[in-house]
Amino acid sequence: MPSKVEADKERGWIVPVGGAEDKEGRAEILRRFVQLAGGSGARIAIIPTASQLESTGRRYEGIFGDLGARSAQALAYREREDADRTDWLAQLEDATGIFLTGGNQLRISTVLGGTVVAKTIRRMNARGVPVGGTSAGAAILSEHMIAYGSEGSTPRAGMATLAPGFGLTNRVVIDQHFRQRDRLGRLLTALAYNPFAVGLGLDEDTAAFIDPDDTVHVLGAGAITVVDPSSLEHSSIAAAELGEPVCMTGVRVHVLPAGGTFNLHTKKAGPPAGSERS
Amino acid sequence: MPSKVEADKERGWIVPVGGAEDKEGRAEILRRFVQLAGGSGARIAIIPTASQLESTGRRYEGIFGDLGARSAQALAYREREDADRTDWLAQLEDATGIFLTGGNQLRISTVLGGTVVAKTIRRMNARGVPVGGTSAGAAILSEHMIAYGSEGSTPRAGMATLAPGFGLTNRVVIDQHFRQRDRLGRLLTALAYNPFAVGLGLDEDTAAFIDPDDTVHVLGAGAITVVDPSSLEHSSIAAAELGEPVCMTGVRVHVLPAGGTFNLHTKKAGPPAGSERS
Repeated sequence: MPSKVEADKERGWIVPVGGAEDKEGRAEILRRFVQLAGGSGARIAIIPTASQLESTGRRYEGIFGDLGARSAQALAYREREDADRTDWLAQLEDATGIFLTGGNQLRISTVLGGTVVAKTIRRMNARGVPVGGTSAGAAILSEHMIAYGSEGSTPRAGMATLAPGFGLTNRVVIDQHFRQRDRLGRLLTALAYNPFAVGLGLDEDTAAFIDPDDTVHVLGAGAITVVDPSSLEHSSIAAAELGEPVCMTGVRVHVLPAGGTFNLHTKKAGPPAGSERS
Repeated sequence: MPSKVEADKERGWIVPVGGAEDKEGRAEILRRFVQLAGGSGARIAIIPTASQLESTGRRYEGIFGDLGARSAQALAYREREDADRTDWLAQLEDATGIFLTGGNQLRISTVLGGTVVAKTIRRMNARGVPVGGTSAGAAILSEHMIAYGSEGSTPRAGMATLAPGFGLTNRVVIDQHFRQRDRLGRLLTALAYNPFAVGLGLDEDTAAFIDPDDTVHVLGAGAITVVDPSSLEHSSIAAAELGEPVCMTGVRVHVLPAGGTFNLHTKKAGPPAGSERS
């Protein structure tokens, strides 16, 4: 669950990215993340645990360095015993921003779940440190993450398998590579189980910058599909056999490109400034 | 997520029951629940939403009445719009104990998830009101609940499907009818995704009375299998294909009959009083 935010502190930004974000062009998503982490004073801790590639951590060290961060250090947690390394923990605690790379979200949860590293990330975010991640690194940020699922736009019983994530917020369930992998069905399925959270379907090269007051700000080349089940009238998932299509009525959907906003408390969507015709 | 406990209040007891509890004999589990709810002053709200049988609510009204509760009232939430009934909400808020019947846990989450009823139950528990449930009504109590799963003692990737529950606690994942339905594998799978919680496998006619300080007290005819992954050394679930057996090393297991205890903070198990030989 989210750590308690101290009375005089704001929670840090939470920044899930839909994967395949631009790294060598304008890199506006990663650039904005560096700004939130302190710009030229930023010290970024990179967690490359989701990835099987040795080079992933070093690659992001170079990218964040090029974008002007003061330091960027990969902490290559690979096995659960790595969580005991006090030198890495000290570097993590010294960071002004934490970024989790892509790969497989179950690698992050199985290697770091329940360890002091996961607790430290939660506590630092509650104290104001921004935490972001791309693809698998985005999925892990919320309390309920999608661990497996199949493609297609129709929700079907059992189509999405949820697992516990890091729990920086439980207001959203995140899905990534959203339009590219046709994932509306699995996100709807994930929400149908218990319609208390809001679904954020993130296209590639697109990010949800969730501010300390829980308003989502969209940045990047694609769009975010916000799936709001708070006015759901009926869901048939309890009666459906595994694999059967699920009936859901009353779901609200917003497709928000860069500049769009969504308030996770009021459930109100805002279009990009200047997009309304007069 | 669990509601914040006010500084001068203790959280209420959380009482998951493994299903098929004795109702007409000594009924020691339901009897103890009535005591926690105030004994002869107890006003118990029954939520029969998991069940498809019209008679389930009335049956528990009779049982709790026979056990000496002052009142026992079923609130038969069947569709999401029922959550708007102010008369039922007033009865719920007046209760000194809340009990959820068995059936299908996805009916509870789809009908009540995200509604004022779920929020009220969380808030009342945080203020000291005991909340219990049997079978499906036990599964729904925690933040992460098992929605589907298959039988067998070996964990396999994807064998358990988690969904968000009511979130009274996120320290445990609950499974019910445990020995009767050979569910060790699915509970291990649920914990393998992210080994931060403790698994409670509840046999039928057996309950975990979780006190305000998060110590589990076992009551009933069977045992509770406590699965503690906090010292997990390795889990292969991230690398396993769906359906493949999962390697887990370093899991601690305790089988606790009536009188046994387990502290969810220290992760220490205690045998029933008098069972140690001198």
